[in-house]
Amino acid sequence: MPFVSIRITREGVTAEQKAQVIKEVTDTLERVLHKPPEWTHIVIEEVDTDNWGFGGRTTTAIRKEQAG
Amino acid sequence: MPFVSIRITREGVTAEQKAQVIKEVTDTLERVLHKPPEWTHIVIEEVDTDNWGFGGRTTTAIRKEQAG
Amino acid sequence: MPFVSIRITREGVTAEQKAQVIKEVTDTLERVLHKPPEWTHIVIEEVDTDNWGFGGRTTTAIRKEQAG
Amino acid sequence: MPFVSIRITREGVTAEQKAQVIKEVTDTLERVLHKPPEWTHIVIEEVDTDNWGFGGRTTTAIRKEQAG
Amino acid sequence: MPFVSIRITREGVTAEQKAQVIKEVTDTLERVLHKPPEWTHIVIEEVDTDNWGFGGRTTTAIRKEQAG
Amino acid sequence: MPFVSIRITREGVTAEQKAQVIKEVTDTLERVLHKPPEWTHIVIEEVDTDNWGFGGRTTTAIRKEQAG
Repeated sequence: MPFVSIRITREGVTAEQKAQVIKEVTDTLERVLHKPPEWTHIVIEEVDTDNWGFGGRTTTAIRKEQAG
Repeated sequence: MPFVSIRITREGVTAEQKAQVIKEVTDTLERVLHKPPEWTHIVIEEVDTDNWGFGGRTTTAIRKEQAG
Repeated sequence: MPFVSIRITREGVTAEQKAQVIKEVTDTLERVLHKPPEWTHIVIEEVDTDNWGFGGRTTTAIRKEQAG
Repeated sequence: MPFVSIRITREGVTAEQKAQVIKEVTDTLERVLHKPPEWTHIVIEEVDTDNWGFGGRTTTAIRKEQAG
Repeated sequence: MPFVSIRITREGVTAEQKAQVIKEVTDTLERVLHKPPEWTHIVIEEVDTDNWGFGGRTTTAIRKEQAG
Repeated sequence: MPFVSIRITREGVTAEQKAQVIKEVTDTLERVLHKPPEWTHIVIEEVDTDNWGFGGRTTTAIRKEQAG
């Protein structure tokens, strides 16, 4: 019965990458914890960079500095 | 003080359906757990089908197979 | 594929009450949103009253005032 | 290692307000709990008013009544 | 900046299994999404079987039937 | 209607510290976002160090290395 929530910043992850993450994490939970894949739900929650703070600043500000 | 998060795939649920779910779950928590409705918050979080994995595949892939 | 998280304070809810909440919320999601019960996962997360804040105070403090 | 999720209704909060909330909550966790800011992640999750229920009704309905 | 929450039932998962899950999921997010491991936080949240509902029943009830 | 979840490792935070965090975060949301305190719920979720992974390792392993 695992439920997995993966929160990441919304920065251009493709549908193929999402499908690969879902496949690999489901495999890990089956192999390591013996959880049947048909009971494993995984949700990828993409968060705007204005809405994700890290070290006291938004990711928008961090990305600008990195680009600068 | 209940807080309820309901995650579903984003597949055309109407505002009327959402209001009905909110009403019924609030009623259940009041009747069974004696929680005052004015303390009950319920959030419906809709997730794109590319972002919800189930049985190791995205819901997008599952829906295609079901339609096929 | 619904996943429901219900957070409540840990204040003596019984196993019977939990089972009833799970049954009713699953029914609501089936009846209103047409979600198959075998895809619906519901988690009840009990939180110590020291750890739940409301109106700027902990529930422990609120309960003391109500009892006083 | 704190991770903070702040769910609010989507009602016009600005990027400046978000940055200020992120800064202040990171400061609180550093000052009160001694958590290093570079380990603190904060996510602001905005929820449509149709999707947030309170007292058994959607926030959309509550706002209409308040405006009425 | 990923934050991953993995909810499972509390049914005897060992510290070694948890460490292995954390290692593999961090690896997946680095390899597939290019997320630096030092930004990836993973939380495993174990839920009592009385508190996890599936198909309208608690996992406690499901386990009893499976054992019976 | 804010709902705030603060996940931290379970490493001896006191009830007084929790009450202070709840007070300050509620104040921030009132001052910056104009949210009435009586609508703000805050939950502090403490996670065992075996269950929190960071940089691919559990916090238990990280703490041992720091202590060593």
